[in-house]
Amino acid sequence: MTTAAAAALGVDVGGTKVLAVVIDAAGNILRSCRVATPQGAPLPGERLGGPLAVAIAEAVAGCKLSAELPIGIGAPGMVDRKGRLAYAPNLQSATGAELLLVCREILGDRVLLVENDATCAGFAEHHAGALRGVADGLLITLGTGIGGAVISDGALRRGTQGFAGEFGHMVIDRSGPPCPCGSAGCWERYASGAGLARIAHEAAAAGQLETLVAAHGGSVEAIRGEAVVAAARSGDQEAIAVLNIVGWWLALGISNLAAILDPAVVVIGGGLSEIGELLLAPAIAALPSMLEGGSRRELPRLSIAQMGPEAGAIGAGLLALESPS
Amino acid sequence: MTTAAAAALGVDVGGTKVLAVVIDAAGNILRSCRVATPQGAPLPGERLGGPLAVAIAEAVAGCKLSAELPIGIGAPGMVDRKGRLAYAPNLQSATGAELLLVCREILGDRVLLVENDATCAGFAEHHAGALRGVADGLLITLGTGIGGAVISDGALRRGTQGFAGEFGHMVIDRSGPPCPCGSAGCWERYASGAGLARIAHEAAAAGQLETLVAAHGGSVEAIRGEAVVAAARSGDQEAIAVLNIVGWWLALGISNLAAILDPAVVVIGGGLSEIGELLLAPAIAALPSMLEGGSRRELPRLSIAQMGPEAGAIGAGLLALESPS
Repeated sequence: MTTAAAAALGVDVGGTKVLAVVIDAAGNILRSCRVATPQGAPLPGERLGGPLAVAIAEAVAGCKLSAELPIGIGAPGMVDRKGRLAYAPNLQSATGAELLLVCREILGDRVLLVENDATCAGFAEHHAGALRGVADGLLITLGTGIGGAVISDGALRRGTQGFAGEFGHMVIDRSGPPCPCGSAGCWERYASGAGLARIAHEAAAAGQLETLVAAHGGSVEAIRGEAVVAAARSGDQEAIAVLNIVGWWLALGISNLAAILDPAVVVIGGGLSEIGELLLAPAIAALPSMLEGGSRRELPRLSIAQMGPEAGAIGAGLLALESPS
Repeated sequence: MTTAAAAALGVDVGGTKVLAVVIDAAGNILRSCRVATPQGAPLPGERLGGPLAVAIAEAVAGCKLSAELPIGIGAPGMVDRKGRLAYAPNLQSATGAELLLVCREILGDRVLLVENDATCAGFAEHHAGALRGVADGLLITLGTGIGGAVISDGALRRGTQGFAGEFGHMVIDRSGPPCPCGSAGCWERYASGAGLARIAHEAAAAGQLETLVAAHGGSVEAIRGEAVVAAARSGDQEAIAVLNIVGWWLALGISNLAAILDPAVVVIGGGLSEIGELLLAPAIAALPSMLEGGSRRELPRLSIAQMGPEAGAIGAGLLALESPS
């Protein structure tokens, strides 16, 4: 195997860490570096997003590259087409920051773009992962919340401001639990990490998941999603039932997206995708009866993302490669 | 004004009538003809969709054209990319028909396409109506049910099988009323003609809309949407309140679509669009608080469709003009 040439830098800004990767033109990671995401509001005199840009520059420098490669940045929340972090509930200290401009002040014009992190991950899956060769597909990222990306007629579709793919705040049950966004019954109250925990707590409060409750000192609220998944893997039927419920709600949101966009493939990414079949199988089982004309149409094929937890950073780098500089 | 040249034939197949129009290249209607939609299953020996194709040919012949213009056909329900009526709840006798093939047997190869009717209408609005010049926009048709069309990055997006835009069966309130499609809380239980009637009946059953109930011989179920709209126009506050509720649910579905697709403009078409401001104003008022980051983003602009009730037929003709023959 020959050493592939470094082609771009991709950065993924998360709530707790900033990851920079050096990729080759095919999206393979050659090097990487992580630094902590700065917390808290900017100090007096600092620009909005300034500390974040410094952290991004540190992560880039940590990759110890001699070449000045193009840089793409993925960030959580609503990033507009000018690279402004319009709304970022998980990065509140930088909400409103002109992140592209502030990063260019430090790293220069080789910073080509700032995009939503799930948009970047969707591009990576389309370029080199589970959406490769798919003209109409969706990436759904299941983390604490739900994000996503839309591929239609062979290309990423960002919407007019760049905010397309915010699947988590699709309301699927207006009579359901309130959402921090101000609405109620948003999809991410059901089919995300937070949704899994909420549904597990409901089950525990109803007298189920006894072993898990006992293992958490009798505290229902202390049960985390990871513990439910571990219990399900070891055969706990009530834990499996919780994942079945989450999978059912996952299918309901996918059914909505299929009615709207008719994708051939729906790819599940994000932390919850590591649950694998225990989450995917109940979703696949529930989907046919949910879709209008379900027996008279092909159903979207559900699969697990292939680009791993670095998908956002890889996609940001790949987008920089494709961006007109 | 010179006489514009006839350029294409557009046909709109409805549940009760088939409309054929002759249009010029700009989408203006030069002539038109309506015939009744054949009801009931095909007779023994008849092909599935055969009677419908005969009616389409009659409507085309009724336009009394000497030239053999290209023909596009819009049909209700789920039409796949091969012009097959995969699922058509409002045209059950033809569900499953290979409508494009069957129409070509009668009218020849100048039948270039069969598409979903709302997809056709969306193309007409994009070509010559309320979505003209809009790169990212949606048409939402509010009739008995809800249909729609997606314009993204300047073009119609049909999805992998051609089924994109089935907005009516997006579930927005899973705890809500059952839908004939088999699900529950679908958007068209709330923001369509059927939804308007249902919400009015609920209001009447709760003791409101007394004047309307009296005018319908005391029968709550006899109240139709048109009567509610007329009462609202004459200032009946409880009828206005019903339209406010419908408008609120209209906004909720639009908010979902905005989260997913981030359109710049959302155009309301179909029969209910004739209600105008009494429906649009409450939707516009409700939207900002529903959208994630609503105060930090531009909101989609809501407007009424411009192509009128013939939008589907016009769009079918315009699509035939653009279709590679």
